[in-house]
Amino acid sequence: MKTIGYAAQSAESPLAPYAFERRTLRSNDILMEVLYCGICHTDLHMAHNDWGWTQYPVVPGHEIVGRVIEIGSDVTRYKVGDSVAVGCMVDSCQHCDQCRKGEEQLCREGNTNTYNSPDRITQDITYGGYSKHLVVREEFTLRVPDGLDLSRTAPLLCAGITTYSPLRTWNVGPGSRVGVIGLGGLGHMAVKLAVALGADVTVLSRSKNKEAAARALGADRLLVSADEDAMTKAHSSFDLIIDTVPVKHDLKPYVPLLDVDGTLVLVGQIGPLEEPNTIPLILGRRRIAGSPIGGIAETQEMLDFCARKNILPECKMIRMDEINEAFEQLEQGDISYRFVIDMASLKS
Amino acid sequence: MKTIGYAAQSAESPLAPYAFERRTLRSNDILMEVLYCGICHTDLHMAHNDWGWTQYPVVPGHEIVGRVIEIGSDVTRYKVGDSVAVGCMVDSCQHCDQCRKGEEQLCREGNTNTYNSPDRITQDITYGGYSKHLVVREEFTLRVPDGLDLSRTAPLLCAGITTYSPLRTWNVGPGSRVGVIGLGGLGHMAVKLAVALGADVTVLSRSKNKEAAARALGADRLLVSADEDAMTKAHSSFDLIIDTVPVKHDLKPYVPLLDVDGTLVLVGQIGPLEEPNTIPLILGRRRIAGSPIGGIAETQEMLDFCARKNILPECKMIRMDEINEAFEQLEQGDISYRFVIDMASLKS
Repeated sequence: MKTIGYAAQSAESPLAPYAFERRTLRSNDILMEVLYCGICHTDLHMAHNDWGWTQYPVVPGHEIVGRVIEIGSDVTRYKVGDSVAVGCMVDSCQHCDQCRKGEEQLCREGNTNTYNSPDRITQDITYGGYSKHLVVREEFTLRVPDGLDLSRTAPLLCAGITTYSPLRTWNVGPGSRVGVIGLGGLGHMAVKLAVALGADVTVLSRSKNKEAAARALGADRLLVSADEDAMTKAHSSFDLIIDTVPVKHDLKPYVPLLDVDGTLVLVGQIGPLEEPNTIPLILGRRRIAGSPIGGIAETQEMLDFCARKNILPECKMIRMDEINEAFEQLEQGDISYRFVIDMASLKS
Repeated sequence: MKTIGYAAQSAESPLAPYAFERRTLRSNDILMEVLYCGICHTDLHMAHNDWGWTQYPVVPGHEIVGRVIEIGSDVTRYKVGDSVAVGCMVDSCQHCDQCRKGEEQLCREGNTNTYNSPDRITQDITYGGYSKHLVVREEFTLRVPDGLDLSRTAPLLCAGITTYSPLRTWNVGPGSRVGVIGLGGLGHMAVKLAVALGADVTVLSRSKNKEAAARALGADRLLVSADEDAMTKAHSSFDLIIDTVPVKHDLKPYVPLLDVDGTLVLVGQIGPLEEPNTIPLILGRRRIAGSPIGGIAETQEMLDFCARKNILPECKMIRMDEINEAFEQLEQGDISYRFVIDMASLKS
């Protein structure tokens, strides 16, 4: 079917309207009308080809919420009218050990990203959620539980699951001492989710400016990372630190904050880090890890958890034609919310 | 009491005979005649003040085996004539959560190192095992089980426990896929211990030269880290990699070798590492950690395990007056065994 979206045609060009075809439904596909799409920092990196693997034109968007408007002949999980969501992946091999464990994000053959990835059957490059319609197999479709505000659900599909998954992998619950570095799209979700899981939550920020914002999200305190005395006092006091900083940075101030066997999990920066020092790692038996998104089952669990606990991202709604300004603001950083595109603003 | 040892008087001076006093026995002290002392890379760093915290004169040595020749009035665990050993620490606070868990190496107040550390009572700087005698509280004395060859036991006290502890912390057993980077003092012990625990063991080395040595230690194979094809084929195939490289190096070739949730444990390099890249950490949910020595109970467990499994380090015995040449050889690297000083060679 014909649809319309916003695409970048090169690393230098702004996003602009782009008409393209969505595939005819396979038997296990659903067709959704996209209602909202969150803007992730990854979209910016991909549009600008920051990682060197963008294929143009690229239609970004992997925080997608909408409504089912057609289903394939074998679809059993969804029916027309259902509120559904799609995150960062739309397919995987489905037979490796990781897929069988419900960890499709770690598929041995590599999962199919929602955009900029070859479809497993046709090899056509996938197009994301900055568009009116999306066709996706039902196994990679999430159900939006009743009670979640559709207009604020989209960022859960990447920012939400990317922070929920490490909280679950490292068994965060009541009594856990969790630090969150950065208070942007990912960071503010990490705070809300860790608080909802019962943890004692500290936001780490360069200045005191974000204290009110941190507390409003439910954090117990803000630790100013530029305050050396406060940082020293906080040595060995965290079980888990979620590091959402999306640029190259220095872990040296943060690693000593971990208690014995504590872990700093990187979820923001995709690329190089500054030189680490092994002394606090070795002497304190501390750990550094990375974590991607979660699997489909865990993503559904996260959506259900958010509905039950009434957790929603802080969102700023924009029109589709405001996307390039939003990218600019995102690039300048220091935004404690997620931009969400109201797809009704995109006229075909 | 008066005793004699070998000390460095400055970062530039070679080790030379040094007469000094050992403290009068406290009620919980034992006095041991040192029979053998292993040479650890740390001794070299400390003698040369590589880390900037050496206090001169320094008497190195923290892989110490000997015989009890006197006991304090309250000593109950040891009697004169017992074969005993001392490792990297001789005291700790004994009341913090870590000490209570038997993790004295992670004592909240810092443990007292066997040398170059202030005694907790007198503040006198401790002197290590490059000496005829040692006085140590019984709680930090290990029992050498019957059947262990005393002349080859000493390196277990640092090289042994430093590699045994991470193997236990990360639950290595039958079926575990373990990689060992480096085949020196620590690396060769890591191989022997991992093999004895039932793991499938791969030695990673820059060249094929060490293949026979690796197999002789019980390793299942050698993976040449300079062979890019072989390294790529080995991606995602290790649960645990023990990295014993004692200099600044690049983890980038090794991290992708870890399977999902696999860990690379640093035990060799104390200081900076080259810039890491987060991509394999995040996309594969991989981990980097550090690990120090083990606690006293775990060290005893390791000695008992080695006696039961007949595991001993490869040792090269030297006379005390050969210490400076041994340091030189150690500095040049590429040694798949541990130097051990026969303390009988030190005449008072």
